[in-house]
Amino acid sequence: MRHAVITGAASGIGAAAARALHERGYRITAIDLNDPGSAADRWIEQDLGDPDTPLPVIDGPVDALINAAGLPPRAGLEPKILSVNVLALRRVTRAVLPLMSEGGSIVNVASKAGAKWRENIAQVRHLLAMPDDADLTAFVADERIDPVRAYDLSKEAVIVWTKAATGDLIDRGIRMNAVSPAAVATPILDDFTRAFGERATRGIEMTRRSGSPEEVAEVIAFLTSPASEWVRGCNIETDGGLTAMLETRDIIGPDVGTP
Amino acid sequence: MRHAVITGAASGIGAAAARALHERGYRITAIDLNDPGSAADRWIEQDLGDPDTPLPVIDGPVDALINAAGLPPRAGLEPKILSVNVLALRRVTRAVLPLMSEGGSIVNVASKAGAKWRENIAQVRHLLAMPDDADLTAFVADERIDPVRAYDLSKEAVIVWTKAATGDLIDRGIRMNAVSPAAVATPILDDFTRAFGERATRGIEMTRRSGSPEEVAEVIAFLTSPASEWVRGCNIETDGGLTAMLETRDIIGPDVGTP
Repeated sequence: MRHAVITGAASGIGAAAARALHERGYRITAIDLNDPGSAADRWIEQDLGDPDTPLPVIDGPVDALINAAGLPPRAGLEPKILSVNVLALRRVTRAVLPLMSEGGSIVNVASKAGAKWRENIAQVRHLLAMPDDADLTAFVADERIDPVRAYDLSKEAVIVWTKAATGDLIDRGIRMNAVSPAAVATPILDDFTRAFGERATRGIEMTRRSGSPEEVAEVIAFLTSPASEWVRGCNIETDGGLTAMLETRDIIGPDVGTP
Repeated sequence: MRHAVITGAASGIGAAAARALHERGYRITAIDLNDPGSAADRWIEQDLGDPDTPLPVIDGPVDALINAAGLPPRAGLEPKILSVNVLALRRVTRAVLPLMSEGGSIVNVASKAGAKWRENIAQVRHLLAMPDDADLTAFVADERIDPVRAYDLSKEAVIVWTKAATGDLIDRGIRMNAVSPAAVATPILDDFTRAFGERATRGIEMTRRSGSPEEVAEVIAFLTSPASEWVRGCNIETDGGLTAMLETRDIIGPDVGTP
């Protein structure tokens, strides 16, 4: 029986991924503060924002790791957003990696919000140089990071870390990829529309609707399956075409693509 | 019965896509100069490099269009490379679009060779401004395009056109995406290693092997399935991690991603 470890499995995209992999016959180990319900075979109750509580023993082998836990932009939570979305993701991955079977697949839930990782690479590097248990309060103050910037930076760092790990993982037969949704109808969608304002509502307008957690989970399931064997270090925009439409507006220009 | 139209279905990635969709129960219409064999239900024998021969009538509805026909870099063929890889792809797509069913999916076989589309956007725009039946001899001479540049430009244009069409297609319920393989073990792999030289051999070294046509076809099959419903205007690098490793070398820097 294949075995998937899923963080943030109690709600939103993590819960949809747990259901999708459960339906495909995976045994599911869920890591979440809240009860993940019936799709999970084991629940590890854990606050990923607390680096001092070590992860309990996870029984291997693990065939898939889905890093879906994440905090949305909320005022006052800036250090915790970076800590949960980046450092805890890295900490869980490092803990699970030695248990992973040959051909294992890791999928990180990034975001359209991380698309500007190239422009912000210096700050991303700075963040990723921190140890997994770092207190980021001083970092947030020094770099004047507000809630929106904390969220964007956290997702930039997830994309960068996913890509940068590709070379190290290749000879271990393990793949790591990311998915980047835009607005998704989850319990934290209101946080995003409040924090991002027009940026979020215009995006939903352009794609005609927000995505569903299930639509993102289908891409995650594909990335854990052997069908995606040759897809490595890739960030799959799962955003209803938002990235393509913004690139068309900002880089490509009008009247180039009329089909 | 679902119906897929596949160009270049007689060999390489196109043939693997025909087999993959045939196995999934699709009826296959193959467009190729050469006999596509038993995976195809209908063979339209056509030279896509000749814009004066109109496409014969294709019976709809069409659920999937796979644009896999393409010429590799070969000296003396520069106008034809651009004509087949870009103008014919656009011509076939425009012919098939009115036949496509709601929820239909178009997949264009681009390439890692097209990754620098941002840097070369002015030349890409110039090419995409040409009509579908243009003679590109003067364009190639004026822009001093050699065989490698012709191939790279053709794939940049495929990626750009895929992205730029997203907005127009969204309200017709049709999706268009691209896959970008690096070296793939097909009958034309020798053309690439000859033309690209060290660029090709170093890439294969970095990813430890070339990809297989079947590995690329699995991603194409995913992009035609409802599982990828929310993936639109996306270019999925199917390259064993080559793009991620080159971005790590050139942009991200070392020691950022040690997992």
